[in-house]
Amino acid sequence: MSDKNAKKLLFTRQEMFELNKKILIKRGVSIESIAEISYQQQSKYTTDISRQICLESVEKILSLRDVFHHVQLACEIDRLAEQGKFEGPIQDIIYADLGLFGIDETMGLDVSGLYGTIGQTNFGDIDVNKHGIVKRLNEAGKEEGICHTFLDDIVGAIAAAASTRVAQVMNEEIANEEIGVTRLSIFDL
Amino acid sequence: MSDKNAKKLLFTRQEMFELNKKILIKRGVSIESIAEISYQQQSKYTTDISRQICLESVEKILSLRDVFHHVQLACEIDRLAEQGKFEGPIQDIIYADLGLFGIDETMGLDVSGLYGTIGQTNFGDIDVNKHGIVKRLNEAGKEEGICHTFLDDIVGAIAAAASTRVAQVMNEEIANEEIGVTRLSIFDL
Amino acid sequence: MSDKNAKKLLFTRQEMFELNKKILIKRGVSIESIAEISYQQQSKYTTDISRQICLESVEKILSLRDVFHHVQLACEIDRLAEQGKFEGPIQDIIYADLGLFGIDETMGLDVSGLYGTIGQTNFGDIDVNKHGIVKRLNEAGKEEGICHTFLDDIVGAIAAAASTRVAQVMNEEIANEEIGVTRLSIFDL
Amino acid sequence: MSDKNAKKLLFTRQEMFELNKKILIKRGVSIESIAEISYQQQSKYTTDISRQICLESVEKILSLRDVFHHVQLACEIDRLAEQGKFEGPIQDIIYADLGLFGIDETMGLDVSGLYGTIGQTNFGDIDVNKHGIVKRLNEAGKEEGICHTFLDDIVGAIAAAASTRVAQVMNEEIANEEIGVTRLSIFDL
Repeated sequence: MSDKNAKKLLFTRQEMFELNKKILIKRGVSIESIAEISYQQQSKYTTDISRQICLESVEKILSLRDVFHHVQLACEIDRLAEQGKFEGPIQDIIYADLGLFGIDETMGLDVSGLYGTIGQTNFGDIDVNKHGIVKRLNEAGKEEGICHTFLDDIVGAIAAAASTRVAQVMNEEIANEEIGVTRLSIFDL
Repeated sequence: MSDKNAKKLLFTRQEMFELNKKILIKRGVSIESIAEISYQQQSKYTTDISRQICLESVEKILSLRDVFHHVQLACEIDRLAEQGKFEGPIQDIIYADLGLFGIDETMGLDVSGLYGTIGQTNFGDIDVNKHGIVKRLNEAGKEEGICHTFLDDIVGAIAAAASTRVAQVMNEEIANEEIGVTRLSIFDL
Repeated sequence: MSDKNAKKLLFTRQEMFELNKKILIKRGVSIESIAEISYQQQSKYTTDISRQICLESVEKILSLRDVFHHVQLACEIDRLAEQGKFEGPIQDIIYADLGLFGIDETMGLDVSGLYGTIGQTNFGDIDVNKHGIVKRLNEAGKEEGICHTFLDDIVGAIAAAASTRVAQVMNEEIANEEIGVTRLSIFDL
Repeated sequence: MSDKNAKKLLFTRQEMFELNKKILIKRGVSIESIAEISYQQQSKYTTDISRQICLESVEKILSLRDVFHHVQLACEIDRLAEQGKFEGPIQDIIYADLGLFGIDETMGLDVSGLYGTIGQTNFGDIDVNKHGIVKRLNEAGKEEGICHTFLDDIVGAIAAAASTRVAQVMNEEIANEEIGVTRLSIFDL
């Protein structure tokens, strides 16, 4: 009677955005805190960016199907590790966030490149140097009973993709100004 | 007098699309032939897709900045190899398209994942099994004086990204129908 | 009292190989069945390869730390999905192996590129066209109570990396013969 | 008469190492300067590493076929850009090292992950924060007539891969000590 395909598997972008927002808040991450990393990162290269465009970018990214899968799985792996549900050596490796464990980074690299490869090197910077909420998640993750092994990377990756989108949008505006048009409607980012 | 930053470096998406279309035609590749691979590939999974949405997807992808850089560099590396301009061992390796040479695939993997990871495995299928225009480019590239080492991969990668975009758009429509809405305007692909 | 760092987190390559072999057999995958895919794939390009070098390559790959983490996590995610342990939408998405779900492919792409980028396109071919054990795993995974969403990809990726290693070893031998030496000892693969 | 396949395309690892060393020195990069970045990076995590193991790691990486192709192509693209040999917009984009140009990073990410994914985030850190020789290359590349667009990334990527190999070797030693063996011979890194 139960059928592998009977369940709801496809969600609209609006639904995916809401589900991502909900699970992130449950795990202690606000959309604003992700946008703040993008803002700080992009401010190094451009002076007059607004927090609004960073926030919009994070929201747009959180509505993409691949990102939906990444966010949901990342949060669930961390939760299952907190509850000791993995069998074999991987339970302790994830729970303790072993330095040489890199699948969280593999997932982060996939998400961070969505708007261009420079997002992936920006993700590396965030991952190694631990900015903002990534730092707080990483430190909280060292406490007994808390596991943020995947969460801090997925959050850093979304921030990196968002700051890359901001760079793309701003450069598109500069390019349009150079040739004297305001904004093309066919191609949006 | 001449300044490294004085040149035009930023192009609008419309300009990038036109420049890509132009160089591809110069190298023997029409937008329709790329869209045809996407159509054939996606038709394996879905019955009623139109060639139009495949064509639109290829056009949208050809307007992205990272893809612009990939297409332009790929075509130029091939041309320079045809003219024997590289020094050292890399000239013959590129010109003969050595089996173990993989930088063209590295570039293809980057482009093919733009609308989701399944684009990257679809690219692998196209690359190994040589569909449509990719097969014709690959065979022509074996002739004296012609080098398509990078071109066939970049073309296959754009086709793979386009068929992934088509899958994303169609699944978004299914998801919207399930909950009884027509189409969300805030998030487009 | 319990300490996050008190557990055993680092394993030797011999230990990692044994743990991988054990969990794969538990999930229905023999080392020989992985090596068989590599053999079939590489036989398309080279005539006289032995099954032995394919087997050795699979064994070597199964002893690498990143691969250890991938294999262990992939098997455990599948098991937890079979037992319905994930909360939220990701449970059904993983259990039903949704077509647009691509994190298993992201992990596969990471593993398959270990001996060169052509491993990643070979992985795409295996993933799309389902050779040997990958096909059997994929079909069994459609049955009620069984989930092979991550397993078939990690197995295909190990096979792709192994056939790439075989190609590298054989080309190294050809290159050595060309200059009249037998085998260099300093650099092994 | 002239045949696409008549040229020497396959080189031994010793030959590839020598050719890489030669072209890097020609472009102003010593093996020691790459090893120094690895040493500085890895010293943040481990106290007693030797410069010798960093140097050995860089040498081993420079003998791999994929790295050979990357180093040779990167150096040649830079040289051709210095001499204005590219046609179309890509000439100025490469020569000026446009901020949003990311193919050099795509190539760097491919090389940096050879010994594990953490190499890719370490590469991101090196790329964004410009350590040692990478900083000097980047600054020299801003001068008229010099282009280091691809070189600084490939050098940073080799350093990141090398420091990851050092981490893998040291962790293998710790793991062996824990179980009381000295060093396994079958599996080396």
